[in-house]
Amino acid sequence: MKILFIGGIKSGKSRLAEAYILEQTKQKPYYLATTEFIDDEMRDRITAHQQRRQDGFITLEEPIELLNVLKKHPTPVLIECVSMWLNNMLYHQHTEGRILQELTDVLLLPSDMVFVQNEVGFGVIPDNPLARKYVDISGKAAQLLGEKCDQVFFCCAGLKLRLK
Amino acid sequence: MKILFIGGIKSGKSRLAEAYILEQTKQKPYYLATTEFIDDEMRDRITAHQQRRQDGFITLEEPIELLNVLKKHPTPVLIECVSMWLNNMLYHQHTEGRILQELTDVLLLPSDMVFVQNEVGFGVIPDNPLARKYVDISGKAAQLLGEKCDQVFFCCAGLKLRLK
Amino acid sequence: MKILFIGGIKSGKSRLAEAYILEQTKQKPYYLATTEFIDDEMRDRITAHQQRRQDGFITLEEPIELLNVLKKHPTPVLIECVSMWLNNMLYHQHTEGRILQELTDVLLLPSDMVFVQNEVGFGVIPDNPLARKYVDISGKAAQLLGEKCDQVFFCCAGLKLRLK
Repeated sequence: MKILFIGGIKSGKSRLAEAYILEQTKQKPYYLATTEFIDDEMRDRITAHQQRRQDGFITLEEPIELLNVLKKHPTPVLIECVSMWLNNMLYHQHTEGRILQELTDVLLLPSDMVFVQNEVGFGVIPDNPLARKYVDISGKAAQLLGEKCDQVFFCCAGLKLRLK
Repeated sequence: MKILFIGGIKSGKSRLAEAYILEQTKQKPYYLATTEFIDDEMRDRITAHQQRRQDGFITLEEPIELLNVLKKHPTPVLIECVSMWLNNMLYHQHTEGRILQELTDVLLLPSDMVFVQNEVGFGVIPDNPLARKYVDISGKAAQLLGEKCDQVFFCCAGLKLRLK
Repeated sequence: MKILFIGGIKSGKSRLAEAYILEQTKQKPYYLATTEFIDDEMRDRITAHQQRRQDGFITLEEPIELLNVLKKHPTPVLIECVSMWLNNMLYHQHTEGRILQELTDVLLLPSDMVFVQNEVGFGVIPDNPLARKYVDISGKAAQLLGEKCDQVFFCCAGLKLRLK
């Protein structure tokens, strides 16, 4: 099973995704953290996430090599989050084609995965070309996930709504 | 009953919330306006809201002391809106902890309340640290409301979708 | 029948709307392209849309005179998109009243129409007054469409959710 939790900033998507994977699986799931660049604000967010998770998960850290890591650590895994991975890939000058291909390959793996993604496309189109590029690839990645996942949940106000 | 109407700018959330509270209650409901800072643009918005409400409501105005006012004016009340109150609280240097505690206390009051809130987290993460802080606390407040309210409606294009 | 597909940037709304109108109609539908200002980035988007449509549609181009064109080309028609038309109308200094009146008149035509619109109001309120004005009129147009359309679909991650 592949499952997507998509929602805005602080929509509760991570908490909902964590609760979901813990409910659904008997074995201790993996938690794949994709964060690469860490400033103080980010560190506070990570700490808050870690405190919430406690030791319910086995934590992996990989900002770039999503496919390689997921091949080795089979199942089930929470990918937290797709948005940060997209950001890292763009920062390291990977092309859109390469990024979407890697995501396609990840989705062909047989293992159980829960993806968390920020929805970023419901505001005004950004002035900044880089932000526009990010919004675009984020939407394309979301469409790919939306197509290939078995279940998709839209998150808002800490609640989830089934899209698929 | 506690009810939340959450949606984007001009999503119709205020109109939907007003119609809802008027349908549900026989007595004339209170309308708690939380606006503090008023420029010409804001004045136009307020006038538009007032014209629509006409005299269906008893208007109260309180930008900060949400708990105190709600304790005194029991029920039912439309809080318009949570987002402006959060903004005022941050402007007056209240901490996130204090703000979320006050909202928690409000939600423990037994009276019937309908909350209106702007969803602001579905765009790109703002460059501006203050805007980021606002988006964060707004999402945390929405999660608190989403957890404690009996009903939650997501608003878009003047329509509502039940989240809870 | 009037139908609205509303969603964020790259939410899949155009693709969903195209698939929907092709499924629902036996005759070849019109495709009303409202784009006026074309830079390289826009050209790439248009080309991508055209390649996807191939020759399933009869393409019309009209950035401003929505009502006049729709009167002449009766049915069924996909309007791609309302957001670009709003943008063009504001650029050409049409007032909000005039713009919403034209949209009202369009919605009174008896022909079958599928509208595509960007939802832009779920981020932070923009600093820029023009962007704020755009977000406002976009929301008002969406509420008008939401009220008058027979069906409304909210789009996210390439999936659609029925709002009405």
